Amino acid sequence: MKDWKTNLRMATPYVPGEQPTEADIIKLNTNENPYPPAPGVADALAELLTEQLRLYPEPDAGRLASALAKRYGVAKEQIFIGTGSDDVLGMAFLTCFAGAAHAKQLGQAVEEHMVLFPDITYSFYPVWAELFGIPYRRPALDEGFRIRKEDYFVPNGGIVLANPNAPTSIAEDAAVIEDIIRHNPESVVIVDEAYVDFGAESVLPLVEKYENLLVVQTFSKSRSMAGMRIGFAVGSRTLIAAMQAVRNSYNSYPMSLPAILCGVAAVEDEAYFAQTTAAIIKTREASAVRLKQLGFTVLPSKTNFLFVSHKAVLAEELFERLREKHIYVRYFRQERIQNYLRITVGTDAQMEHFFEVLTTLVS
Amino acid sequence: MKDWKTNLRMATPYVPGEQPTEADIIKLNTNENPYPPAPGVADALAELLTEQLRLYPEPDAGRLASALAKRYGVAKEQIFIGTGSDDVLGMAFLTCFAGAAHAKQLGQAVEEHMVLFPDITYSFYPVWAELFGIPYRRPALDEGFRIRKEDYFVPNGGIVLANPNAPTSIAEDAAVIEDIIRHNPESVVIVDEAYVDFGAESVLPLVEKYENLLVVQTFSKSRSMAGMRIGFAVGSRTLIAAMQAVRNSYNSYPMSLPAILCGVAAVEDEAYFAQTTAAIIKTREASAVRLKQLGFTVLPSKTNFLFVSHKAVLAEELFERLREKHIYVRYFRQERIQNYLRITVGTDAQMEHFFEVLTTLVS
Repeated sequence: MKDWKTNLRMATPYVPGEQPTEADIIKLNTNENPYPPAPGVADALAELLTEQLRLYPEPDAGRLASALAKRYGVAKEQIFIGTGSDDVLGMAFLTCFAGAAHAKQLGQAVEEHMVLFPDITYSFYPVWAELFGIPYRRPALDEGFRIRKEDYFVPNGGIVLANPNAPTSIAEDAAVIEDIIRHNPESVVIVDEAYVDFGAESVLPLVEKYENLLVVQTFSKSRSMAGMRIGFAVGSRTLIAAMQAVRNSYNSYPMSLPAILCGVAAVEDEAYFAQTTAAIIKTREASAVRLKQLGFTVLPSKTNFLFVSHKAVLAEELFERLREKHIYVRYFRQERIQNYLRITVGTDAQMEHFFEVLTTLVS
Repeated sequence: MKDWKTNLRMATPYVPGEQPTEADIIKLNTNENPYPPAPGVADALAELLTEQLRLYPEPDAGRLASALAKRYGVAKEQIFIGTGSDDVLGMAFLTCFAGAAHAKQLGQAVEEHMVLFPDITYSFYPVWAELFGIPYRRPALDEGFRIRKEDYFVPNGGIVLANPNAPTSIAEDAAVIEDIIRHNPESVVIVDEAYVDFGAESVLPLVEKYENLLVVQTFSKSRSMAGMRIGFAVGSRTLIAAMQAVRNSYNSYPMSLPAILCGVAAVEDEAYFAQTTAAIIKTREASAVRLKQLGFTVLPSKTNFLFVSHKAVLAEELFERLREKHIYVRYFRQERIQNYLRITVGTDAQMEHFFEVLTTLVS
């Protein structure tokens, strides 16, 4: 007899950073923002009428889409919202990378329909590709972990670039990204800007110029709202309409009422956003200097984390020693980066304690 | 030159009921609960520390999974949570109905791997099947809109049954559902119990007996929390683990902190749950009597809505006339049910007004 389990799709999931719950830890492992959300977020929650929760929320999270459209100078129909940028990226993979599947149906080779993303980048990309059966190829970053743009000047079924890249923290200039977009009028180019607000150059304004560009951002980093699960994408009306059609073929109401209302409050507080992102950049730069003084190579970061390697002590050992002291950073057991640590930028006080411990470990 | 749009997946989405926003309407079109969520939900929101929103929520919505496990007498590892039962069902389709795809890869015919669900049922099922490329077949309900269980005693790649069914409102006995499960040890049987709390018999206890049974429920109806987006599934550890692996290959943190905390508060208030579901059942039964007096055929409902057809006035006409009077009910332009209206059970006061208007329309 056939087993019912033969009907199951077997997936190898993305493994996120640990979420330890002890009270005395310093958590620098999942790139959360050390500052609370904008004050208006607390007000929005306080003013929310629980009675309204009995009703379905607005489809397409209307008020939040309008607030984002206003903030980024695009039309509401150019905004797609999801439960974190992972949801947005997952929907984008499902919507935008069907070229190989279409080719296969026509009996054509899939070679020229492979989706491209770097060998070292956000490790969720290959997971989505596997989940949705999307063939992909991973051009190697150069020895300085920079994108070689020419690698993307070849026939493909789509491109995904994290800029700034994770976990390297390195940002390419918008001109480099635009050059890649310009060379690819035949496929969708997704630029994942999860960390862009910490000093990198966004290509968001280019959505008016390139109909095939999708820019993805998140409330989890620069807006201190990882716990609310809000991500969004900006693109042409055509591209966003295709994504909405797929979304509405999966779940008509992904965003909760609290997420919509709190999201609006966060977007509308430009001053707090500027203040907290500037504070993190300042702490990051000071931390980079100290790390170098301690013998670390520090990649040039435009994110809220630092990607570092020590000249004498192995990254894995530092990771374990820090953990014993209740300081959590991220370590990736992956080729080319197995001697690097990814350290989220915390408050000045957290970093002070971190450096106290780190100094004893490397001297 | 190839167009970038050839890479897009073209989807035909599910169309949910209207969400009108005028203040003076009576909204009986999307099966929302007329009563507010349990009082503890407001407390949970008030006590939520906005500062905590800067952190990612617990993976797998741990506290909510524990509360549901306790409530339903299963292990935490037997609970899967998503942003509404649509998300849960979407993940279930993606996880549990891969049999045809596997068969195709092996060069086998897909005929015996078709997923089965009734011709008249929740209209999202074919949409998910199309989205994920799952072949399906739709056995017809009998002339009384009942499931013919023998239709499901054939080789298949999975079964989906809404019980009570939507939009018919009819519930089959648990024994009928169990008979179908018993005949299908080779595939996954999903029982969508979105409306079960309004008087139907749940097959949830059977998850201990059948490893291939997945029972899906929601907070959007009986727990008055459509705006918070919470749905869940209960099944065997093996089945839930497969779903979690797919989930974690798509989005590691689907549930927001407010959803987790408010969900726990709702589950823990058993008295309020019993009181509000009983009130809706009472209003439903009284409404059914009045509808029959007005010349309607009323299907026997175990849900929070009534599915009715008038002996003289066409359903579409009633739908339009009610709408003009700012009363929204649901009308489906679909074969076999094009002369039926689906009317959500509101408060007694709402139904009083509804009947005042309806009486003038049918007499």
